[in-house]
Amino acid sequence: MAEQQLLPSSEADALVTSSDPKHPANLICTLCRGFYALGWVTGTGGGASIRHDKLIYLAPSGVQKEQLQPHDMFVMDYASRQYLRKPTALKPSQCTPLFLAAFDKGAGCCIHTHSQWAVLVTLLVERDARAVNQSLTERCFEIEEIEQIKAVPKGRGKPGKLGYFDRLRIPIIENTAHEEDLTQSLEEAMEKYPDTHAVLVRRHGIYVWGDDPRSATTLCESLDYLFQLAVRMRELGLPWTPDDTNRQK
Amino acid sequence: MAEQQLLPSSEADALVTSSDPKHPANLICTLCRGFYALGWVTGTGGGASIRHDKLIYLAPSGVQKEQLQPHDMFVMDYASRQYLRKPTALKPSQCTPLFLAAFDKGAGCCIHTHSQWAVLVTLLVERDARAVNQSLTERCFEIEEIEQIKAVPKGRGKPGKLGYFDRLRIPIIENTAHEEDLTQSLEEAMEKYPDTHAVLVRRHGIYVWGDDPRSATTLCESLDYLFQLAVRMRELGLPWTPDDTNRQK
Amino acid sequence: MAEQQLLPSSEADALVTSSDPKHPANLICTLCRGFYALGWVTGTGGGASIRHDKLIYLAPSGVQKEQLQPHDMFVMDYASRQYLRKPTALKPSQCTPLFLAAFDKGAGCCIHTHSQWAVLVTLLVERDARAVNQSLTERCFEIEEIEQIKAVPKGRGKPGKLGYFDRLRIPIIENTAHEEDLTQSLEEAMEKYPDTHAVLVRRHGIYVWGDDPRSATTLCESLDYLFQLAVRMRELGLPWTPDDTNRQK
Amino acid sequence: MAEQQLLPSSEADALVTSSDPKHPANLICTLCRGFYALGWVTGTGGGASIRHDKLIYLAPSGVQKEQLQPHDMFVMDYASRQYLRKPTALKPSQCTPLFLAAFDKGAGCCIHTHSQWAVLVTLLVERDARAVNQSLTERCFEIEEIEQIKAVPKGRGKPGKLGYFDRLRIPIIENTAHEEDLTQSLEEAMEKYPDTHAVLVRRHGIYVWGDDPRSATTLCESLDYLFQLAVRMRELGLPWTPDDTNRQK
Repeated sequence: MAEQQLLPSSEADALVTSSDPKHPANLICTLCRGFYALGWVTGTGGGASIRHDKLIYLAPSGVQKEQLQPHDMFVMDYASRQYLRKPTALKPSQCTPLFLAAFDKGAGCCIHTHSQWAVLVTLLVERDARAVNQSLTERCFEIEEIEQIKAVPKGRGKPGKLGYFDRLRIPIIENTAHEEDLTQSLEEAMEKYPDTHAVLVRRHGIYVWGDDPRSATTLCESLDYLFQLAVRMRELGLPWTPDDTNRQK
Repeated sequence: MAEQQLLPSSEADALVTSSDPKHPANLICTLCRGFYALGWVTGTGGGASIRHDKLIYLAPSGVQKEQLQPHDMFVMDYASRQYLRKPTALKPSQCTPLFLAAFDKGAGCCIHTHSQWAVLVTLLVERDARAVNQSLTERCFEIEEIEQIKAVPKGRGKPGKLGYFDRLRIPIIENTAHEEDLTQSLEEAMEKYPDTHAVLVRRHGIYVWGDDPRSATTLCESLDYLFQLAVRMRELGLPWTPDDTNRQK
Repeated sequence: MAEQQLLPSSEADALVTSSDPKHPANLICTLCRGFYALGWVTGTGGGASIRHDKLIYLAPSGVQKEQLQPHDMFVMDYASRQYLRKPTALKPSQCTPLFLAAFDKGAGCCIHTHSQWAVLVTLLVERDARAVNQSLTERCFEIEEIEQIKAVPKGRGKPGKLGYFDRLRIPIIENTAHEEDLTQSLEEAMEKYPDTHAVLVRRHGIYVWGDDPRSATTLCESLDYLFQLAVRMRELGLPWTPDDTNRQK
Repeated sequence: MAEQQLLPSSEADALVTSSDPKHPANLICTLCRGFYALGWVTGTGGGASIRHDKLIYLAPSGVQKEQLQPHDMFVMDYASRQYLRKPTALKPSQCTPLFLAAFDKGAGCCIHTHSQWAVLVTLLVERDARAVNQSLTERCFEIEEIEQIKAVPKGRGKPGKLGYFDRLRIPIIENTAHEEDLTQSLEEAMEKYPDTHAVLVRRHGIYVWGDDPRSATTLCESLDYLFQLAVRMRELGLPWTPDDTNRQK
């Protein structure tokens, strides 16, 4: 039983107590305040997790992310997947298995947002797919020749970033009734698109990961910039790629 | 006469004096500064009220909500509906009877916003209703299969939140010349939709309530997110529900 | 000559030195920081002026309004229209004669913004007017049945605010090459629409005034809310008034 | 070799250490925090540089611009183009040759943004050009009769600002795979449009310069205001100039 693994209260609290602003328990709070300002975690949505040494730090579920405090953090032993610290009266994030899937691919930080720009591009790709009788899972969000693409890493084990003439592809998975049930399709998308550091979830949002909090955050910002631009492009009838025939509303 | 019920000045002031940031008189100020940043209380519009023990704390009418101070608060005895504290030179909120209607249903906090997204969805539903010769009161704002719906409570006395596949319905009432005249139709909407924690007012805004300030605020944010998304979906020609035939502008 | 009227430096500086945040020299700085956040004074545009007793306080021209300091203020004697204080190296606002026109109508504070929403409604009304071969000056911005209209005062010497069923009319004047040349047409619009507390300037922005800084600011916010809503309504093909036939883009 | 020119560490650090908020090393940090809030440097994009006496201060590449610290700055000797200070573990900005091109024209500050409004106007002008079989480099972004144009300087060596009836023209250059490869076409645009203080880069963003940080910043704000307005005008079917026939989406 997970409960058996909990550390004594004082040891558990020590895991989230630090005067270093870069300590994971502090950093998740700072990041989430920024995410709130960006519209990514409105109404308790979204979340973030950091892997630090052998520990996973996780924001709780169903709380106002912009008001998180270090003592709200869950801490899990990565190897055993057992909680070392579970704040009473809070629930662990339903995103936990999805964050773990990213950590298993080597990530050090994983972010989940409900950004409306992410949701809208999934809706637009869904409509484009239907128009040609494709299923959504056969399609990605695709865009090219936008400078911000150069902020996206090439892929796991490949040094450097995408080039301006590279096409960015972000896979989209179907949403499910329960967040944890996304895990299998997320892992499948990771297998099918081994270079991706992000997976869109239809009518839901996005999961983005990176080697560390800085790279995950800047990638998440860059993708959100591209989704927002893409929505505005569609409103203006501008194509996302040279072969995009869905430029009309 | 209400005036007779006013407490002596020092006792009345004690009701709004506290160093605890969660004290209702302090919390309403903090909440309203956040609401201003979200565009909910522009130009003295909107308001908020908290029920705490046997007392109702109310922001005054016609003042800049982002500059509220604890000593600006009205305090009412909930049982007798008599003011215990009335700041001189300020007017009580015209929303008071509407807030009381929510408290009578068990709410602990009620928020009123003039959010443009709320106003725009009432205008869009109104047009959709007219197109099929329905009256507005026969229609709700309806949306489904958006993850953020899962932040909306199932309803009074029902534990838990709506599911992803549940349809969210928010009733809409007609606006009136005087805000207090909305009370009857608000109460009727509450009867007709006993599970709702929110009622839209046509060309005006929304009333949202919850068990406590946290739940009212996060619900209000989640609904505003959904209204904003819905407006953007309509701009892109995307339907709100599978049976929505009004996807065209 | 105006220069002769300048007070000795120490007396002039005393006019803008106060620890009271409500002192006009301090308040203009605070207001302008807020206006910048609202997008009203981008790129040194816009401005604000307060009449206090027999003095007029004016923000200078061509400076970043969000970085104003009390010692940047010009001070004018209202009766003689002579500057008492002119900061060296700064230029007086070209809006000065327009602000004075509002003060002559009894205003205590006047705000000028370059809000994009104000500019866009002038462009939309211009197009609507052309479509029926009217000149722009025959038209106003007109909207009705939006709750926020109730934040607009009825007019000079008339107590109270507009009602929900009243039609709000804001006159629009032609822009000129030089801002001071707007004065005559502004005064004509004030004569033609004696109840208005605001005049839109085509392809330029808006002048808004009120009895005091609070009423001018909240009116300016309420009008900006209505202009923004009106632009969004037009994007969605929604009419501004029941007789608006220009609802299509 | 550039490395030979590096100052000893203590002397190099002294170049970026000052308690004066207007010192270039401090000012770049302050400016970049503001640029982040404006959406100009999302996801490590964009940058800024200040020329001060004989030195060039440069923000590094690939870092979060809103978190810059003075000790992150690169310092170059303008005459010799040799770095005097290169923070270990940071990369110099790829914009450096472009910033230098502006400094060679007499600028004291140069700003590079990835503003979506800038990107969108390049896309709209590109489409307009194609519709009449023109190449993009034959076209500029052009707008007239908008008050904010009066915040744009007339041109190098010409005192004063554009008038309301002047047409603003901002040249657009093709984007390249590598940012430094933009230098030649930027310089060509500077030759072809000697009065311009800004050059748009297709699908990328904009370079803006001015005599000093204040004038570069306010120009960059004014242009961004005009680009944003232009996108909204196009969404509403409003022409940018009287002879603009591309007003339809």
